[in-house]
Amino acid sequence: MAPTTQPPASPSAIRQAIRAGEIRGHTAGLAPGYVQANLVVLPRDLAYDFLVFCQRNPKPCPLLDVTDPGSPEPALVAPGADLRTDVPRYRVYRHGELVEERDDLLDLWRDDLVAFLLGCSFTFDGLLVEAGVPVRHLGCGRNVPMYRTTRDCVPAGRFAGPLVVSMRPMPPEQVVRAVQVTARFPAVHGAPVHIGDPAALGIADLERPDWGDPPAIEPGDVPVFWACGVTPQAVAMAVRPELMITHAPGHMFVTDVPVASLTAG
Amino acid sequence: MAPTTQPPASPSAIRQAIRAGEIRGHTAGLAPGYVQANLVVLPRDLAYDFLVFCQRNPKPCPLLDVTDPGSPEPALVAPGADLRTDVPRYRVYRHGELVEERDDLLDLWRDDLVAFLLGCSFTFDGLLVEAGVPVRHLGCGRNVPMYRTTRDCVPAGRFAGPLVVSMRPMPPEQVVRAVQVTARFPAVHGAPVHIGDPAALGIADLERPDWGDPPAIEPGDVPVFWACGVTPQAVAMAVRPELMITHAPGHMFVTDVPVASLTAG
Repeated sequence: MAPTTQPPASPSAIRQAIRAGEIRGHTAGLAPGYVQANLVVLPRDLAYDFLVFCQRNPKPCPLLDVTDPGSPEPALVAPGADLRTDVPRYRVYRHGELVEERDDLLDLWRDDLVAFLLGCSFTFDGLLVEAGVPVRHLGCGRNVPMYRTTRDCVPAGRFAGPLVVSMRPMPPEQVVRAVQVTARFPAVHGAPVHIGDPAALGIADLERPDWGDPPAIEPGDVPVFWACGVTPQAVAMAVRPELMITHAPGHMFVTDVPVASLTAG
Repeated sequence: MAPTTQPPASPSAIRQAIRAGEIRGHTAGLAPGYVQANLVVLPRDLAYDFLVFCQRNPKPCPLLDVTDPGSPEPALVAPGADLRTDVPRYRVYRHGELVEERDDLLDLWRDDLVAFLLGCSFTFDGLLVEAGVPVRHLGCGRNVPMYRTTRDCVPAGRFAGPLVVSMRPMPPEQVVRAVQVTARFPAVHGAPVHIGDPAALGIADLERPDWGDPPAIEPGDVPVFWACGVTPQAVAMAVRPELMITHAPGHMFVTDVPVASLTAG
């Protein structure tokens, strides 16, 4: 007798469950095959500069959608969704300081807020795994290590700062495959920014990442570095905006966009 | 004895010659291998909505660079260039009406102007020709035919309007090749939006394009439609901005970006 398996839930069913409070945890593995996104919410008066920053730095800031000021609906990537309720956990920053985590934004939302959704590396790790490239941190239940580099992003208005990268160690014979696979998906950070030498990016010690967990490096592994979605958050935080809201780490927004559609021109 | 040929001029040499008034004509064929761009200049108060419009409609509006307000330097695609002088011919629109063509913008430039550079189909036709796909309008010295469709762009703030497409007729056995070649270059409009049926896009008569010249269709040809850079110009014009400046048709801005680099993620 064949085992009975539930079909995977659709993105809208996942969002509905989040909205109803039935899902409050990490979104990794939910709605497989669909793009998950980082959330950054800023007041309208900062939105133009942030948008230009994303346009000038597409590798760390692959912009998937921007809402109309005051509208919580990401009409491009998830029509009908509500960004005030459909993320399992939010972080609220005031003047650059984390002031609270919360389950919804209903009483915080304002007419001048603009939400940005940016491609996320959850999508990205899945692509590598499917291509047979080992993703070491997944294997041992750690978060990916992330590092501040000495490479500056292209500034835009008030936004400026260093590129943040994530690092995945892998056997040398897998590096070409990893480049090929990720290069096809610029909307989730695309091809690596560097292969091999942490010092070339100004990273002094791979064992001491600035975010995430220390890497799980195996003998002979080559470190491969990709632009990371923490970049725009770190850059926005440095401006110390009066109000900024993001998803809590790992608690992403699930879009209706099939990963496979991202290669389309 | 080998013929003596001049090496092709570099993009910066071309721009210098334009700035010096030595080039005032079309830019087709200049600096081969480098991306040419459409220019749209708008006041800062319209720039945010226009930027969001481009983000939401990347196929007709592949944004290559946005200048800082008041700066005429496209620092991303041509550092050191000056958008007030480095385009061979400009068009000035006031409240949606063409009021003049001119050779430079030196006495029109203002501190609140923002320049947008968008990928151009000159680049695009070259890719097709190199891949062995016949580009009929080039063969007979015509401009590509362009059509207003019944397909709406995703609106953004004050900007809304129909998608404009360009059409290239070709033998059926070339269509797959044409899709493959152009899909690799989303920054110059990417893959076609439609193949085969003009009526599916609301185009009543291929012989009567809304812009450009009538098509040169050969027996058995299939019409292939691509998103067109006239879309953002038409949409911006419909807002009747107090001031809008564009390049004159065919008189493009030559960037330092090698075409081959556009496939990089």
